[in-house]
Amino acid sequence: MTKTFVLLFSSADQKGIVARIADLILKEGGNITAADQYTTDPHNGQFFMRVEFTVEDGSISREKLEADFAAVERDFGGKADIYDKARLLRMGVCVSKPDHCLADILYLWRAGDLPVNIPFVISNCEGHRKSVEQYGIPFHYIPATKEDRHEERLLSLVKDSDFLALARYMLVLSEDFLRKYAKDIINIHHGFLPSFKGADPYRQALSEGVKVIGATAHFATGKLDEGPIISQAVEHVSHTDGLADLVRKGKNLEKRALSQALAKYIDYRVIKHANKTIVF
Amino acid sequence: MTKTFVLLFSSADQKGIVARIADLILKEGGNITAADQYTTDPHNGQFFMRVEFTVEDGSISREKLEADFAAVERDFGGKADIYDKARLLRMGVCVSKPDHCLADILYLWRAGDLPVNIPFVISNCEGHRKSVEQYGIPFHYIPATKEDRHEERLLSLVKDSDFLALARYMLVLSEDFLRKYAKDIINIHHGFLPSFKGADPYRQALSEGVKVIGATAHFATGKLDEGPIISQAVEHVSHTDGLADLVRKGKNLEKRALSQALAKYIDYRVIKHANKTIVF
Amino acid sequence: MTKTFVLLFSSADQKGIVARIADLILKEGGNITAADQYTTDPHNGQFFMRVEFTVEDGSISREKLEADFAAVERDFGGKADIYDKARLLRMGVCVSKPDHCLADILYLWRAGDLPVNIPFVISNCEGHRKSVEQYGIPFHYIPATKEDRHEERLLSLVKDSDFLALARYMLVLSEDFLRKYAKDIINIHHGFLPSFKGADPYRQALSEGVKVIGATAHFATGKLDEGPIISQAVEHVSHTDGLADLVRKGKNLEKRALSQALAKYIDYRVIKHANKTIVF
Amino acid sequence: MTKTFVLLFSSADQKGIVARIADLILKEGGNITAADQYTTDPHNGQFFMRVEFTVEDGSISREKLEADFAAVERDFGGKADIYDKARLLRMGVCVSKPDHCLADILYLWRAGDLPVNIPFVISNCEGHRKSVEQYGIPFHYIPATKEDRHEERLLSLVKDSDFLALARYMLVLSEDFLRKYAKDIINIHHGFLPSFKGADPYRQALSEGVKVIGATAHFATGKLDEGPIISQAVEHVSHTDGLADLVRKGKNLEKRALSQALAKYIDYRVIKHANKTIVF
Repeated sequence: MTKTFVLLFSSADQKGIVARIADLILKEGGNITAADQYTTDPHNGQFFMRVEFTVEDGSISREKLEADFAAVERDFGGKADIYDKARLLRMGVCVSKPDHCLADILYLWRAGDLPVNIPFVISNCEGHRKSVEQYGIPFHYIPATKEDRHEERLLSLVKDSDFLALARYMLVLSEDFLRKYAKDIINIHHGFLPSFKGADPYRQALSEGVKVIGATAHFATGKLDEGPIISQAVEHVSHTDGLADLVRKGKNLEKRALSQALAKYIDYRVIKHANKTIVF
Repeated sequence: MTKTFVLLFSSADQKGIVARIADLILKEGGNITAADQYTTDPHNGQFFMRVEFTVEDGSISREKLEADFAAVERDFGGKADIYDKARLLRMGVCVSKPDHCLADILYLWRAGDLPVNIPFVISNCEGHRKSVEQYGIPFHYIPATKEDRHEERLLSLVKDSDFLALARYMLVLSEDFLRKYAKDIINIHHGFLPSFKGADPYRQALSEGVKVIGATAHFATGKLDEGPIISQAVEHVSHTDGLADLVRKGKNLEKRALSQALAKYIDYRVIKHANKTIVF
Repeated sequence: MTKTFVLLFSSADQKGIVARIADLILKEGGNITAADQYTTDPHNGQFFMRVEFTVEDGSISREKLEADFAAVERDFGGKADIYDKARLLRMGVCVSKPDHCLADILYLWRAGDLPVNIPFVISNCEGHRKSVEQYGIPFHYIPATKEDRHEERLLSLVKDSDFLALARYMLVLSEDFLRKYAKDIINIHHGFLPSFKGADPYRQALSEGVKVIGATAHFATGKLDEGPIISQAVEHVSHTDGLADLVRKGKNLEKRALSQALAKYIDYRVIKHANKTIVF
Repeated sequence: MTKTFVLLFSSADQKGIVARIADLILKEGGNITAADQYTTDPHNGQFFMRVEFTVEDGSISREKLEADFAAVERDFGGKADIYDKARLLRMGVCVSKPDHCLADILYLWRAGDLPVNIPFVISNCEGHRKSVEQYGIPFHYIPATKEDRHEERLLSLVKDSDFLALARYMLVLSEDFLRKYAKDIINIHHGFLPSFKGADPYRQALSEGVKVIGATAHFATGKLDEGPIISQAVEHVSHTDGLADLVRKGKNLEKRALSQALAKYIDYRVIKHANKTIVF
């Protein structure tokens, strides 16, 4: 039996990083099965690396690896995170009325195509209770509105998660909430950012007469519909597509962009860097 | 031998238009080979129709058809335009330094895939002379700059055209020019409008960290990078794509979006309506 | 209040068809809201037309319209079918173990994006009962296998349907079944036909080293994985995609191709012609 | 000033390869700027790696690097190839009558988007002479036909090349030619392989009624239209697309698939493995 670990490492670019990391893994008895790296700029750039490696079960612990890589961090002035792939991330889900992304996520999760734990689904729409609970997932109804977002209650509920997926959650979360939660939040926006921020993006697209529509999965920040983009899905439309058609086609795009972003994220393939992402 | 005509008709939506037009064509001995129609709204919308029909050569003239359809125009308060497909449109081309769209257009034209006449290519880059003249197309060099756009000389040259293709012409044409030319101008913008208007759209895209880039062919209006969109081409990109990669990939998108827009336009398949287009 | 009808008409191409149909609809007080036509060949081709028109409720019955168009059929030697859009088609669903297309269809149906009635879901996998019945749709378990397809029982169950959707039904239906059912059957094949017929198309694709995979929705005929193609969905893949990846990506393609084909079909936009389809 | 090298390495998968290679490059004073690796199977698979690294100019020669990596080859039973990116590959081009891929390649080459040397263009169509020679590239006319392929003359001409691009060269090259040339040959097939091998693939596609067409760039082998696929480009089509439309749309696909394959190949990103390719 083997265990699989993922290392995410970043630092200022400098000679010898790859050699050092590869050597360390070799010495601990690991076998590198996948490696990706990226440097923002060949001169004085920032270096990012993802390494997936296997070790014989029991031969080394995550703690030992973390200690090993702490030394690498020190020597190169970098940041190293080690993940044990057997330990599934806990993905909290928030959703408002439109439930197509929710349905998609739950189906993929049950089919094994989205390997996470889902500790809860939170919604300001009580109507989703049944379809969530049939999967054996706890459902929390919070009567949040623009006037009262119930963020305190929200905060107490989301604690038990490693990150949040906003699967069409229509309420903007406050800076205060983001600071207190302090973990990643992935949002799906039903528009092709940076175009069409804010409300009713399909109506905006229709009004501009675009011939391609899109959906964008991105990290939520304090600013509405900004934050590093993880994935975008697009589709051609024509003059015959009215608002209802754009909404219907857009649902598919939202499902694709969000599920793709989540799949990459939970496989530790997404790194935030400034206002952008590296997606290995 | 047969002749082929295209009718473009628009009016307020009302009963009986299709019957009237089909009946007229039948009475003149025509055979409808293709028909497309679109109504903006089933209730009190605007009606648009494109009909392609053949008649025996010599059996009817364009003038007779125009007189026929003038009556339809009156009765329905609409607008009818008749085009003889054997008479090729004269497409003037304007281009600045980047010549990938120019090269694409000229190749497609020679291959017969862009059935137009090209009475001239105008450029503020003398370097394109040879590659234009080898096709037997007159080349005019105008040393236009942002400070002096030489619009008067431009106007005198473009008179001999039915429409203009701005195949990466980097100078904005003035309202005055547009009013005096008074015919259609199709521009290619190297960004996914309405995002990334103005200069250096690929740099803007890079800075936003988008995962999809695009190019947009649209009718030029007095406003920079606005005007009804005819076609858009898109492609996925990743964090590994630097500015040079976006520019290189974008060239392909620009060629695709522009040549597609031109092909539709010269086949009389593009109708402007408010700030949008109908592309049959 | 208005009623909406769809006419599908086909005949040998000849002058006057459009005029006659448009005139008939006008005389019956109808307003054409959408019209599409296609001729296989400008010379001696086959003509196809789809017309959508509205009439004041109560002003005319489907029976009257059918009588009207029967006259057109006679005069032009054609075939006319009239559909009342208020009467939803009854779509029977058959599915084996893989249930991603089933889940997609049921979700779209409940969301109103697939306007049909679903009189039953039939499966040789008892495990789907719960997820079907929660939608209030009757579920029938048939223990069909390659050795015994239980076609007689199947036939008695599918009678109450206007057409069948095979949402990954893995058993080939016999010529005898097809003849007795005598209505349309739409199948989703998890490969890019005409490549990769038969079992395990993703394994075939992997073994060929293709860089694009696809899924195909088509009418079922007596021949395995043949029959007129309605829609195809494709996606780029790379050497890093193993069999499991192709299967996972393919599921999305299958959902897209099938739901698109069904949406077109139930809006009366699909016409079979020889071994091909016209999809308006 | 720096020099850039690319290493392509393959061997049976085993522990320590990455560490060894990274260490070697570090010791020679190199800085790894990009690295990709792929293992066909985590258990007993084949390992492939592409490493791009820079060294100070003059600090090390390609010969020294080759000697270094020869030791790695021995120790791991693998194969290492070192390329100096400053030395451009010599790409010979062969083309028959359809010249859209030729025009595309020559344009990209002049624009600097295809960094190779082009020592010659060979054609059995004398008509391409002018458009080739205006680029300053030697043109050789060989009156090859199916009956007499003039392979001996061809062989003598192609010697001065590192690989060949068959930019729609319609004559199959014999096993004997392939063996004697003994270098890579990249062919563009105007069909979506493995469907539609052989002559007239667009006619085959039309006859099958497919809704997506494609083009395939692949390594030529002795078998017609087989050989490891490098890239494929696809586009949706409809019933309205006749043979001429498929050919016209297909030309764009052929240009995209071929230029993409060539760009990857000349950047040393394509590795053949059995009947497939790894494209980093």
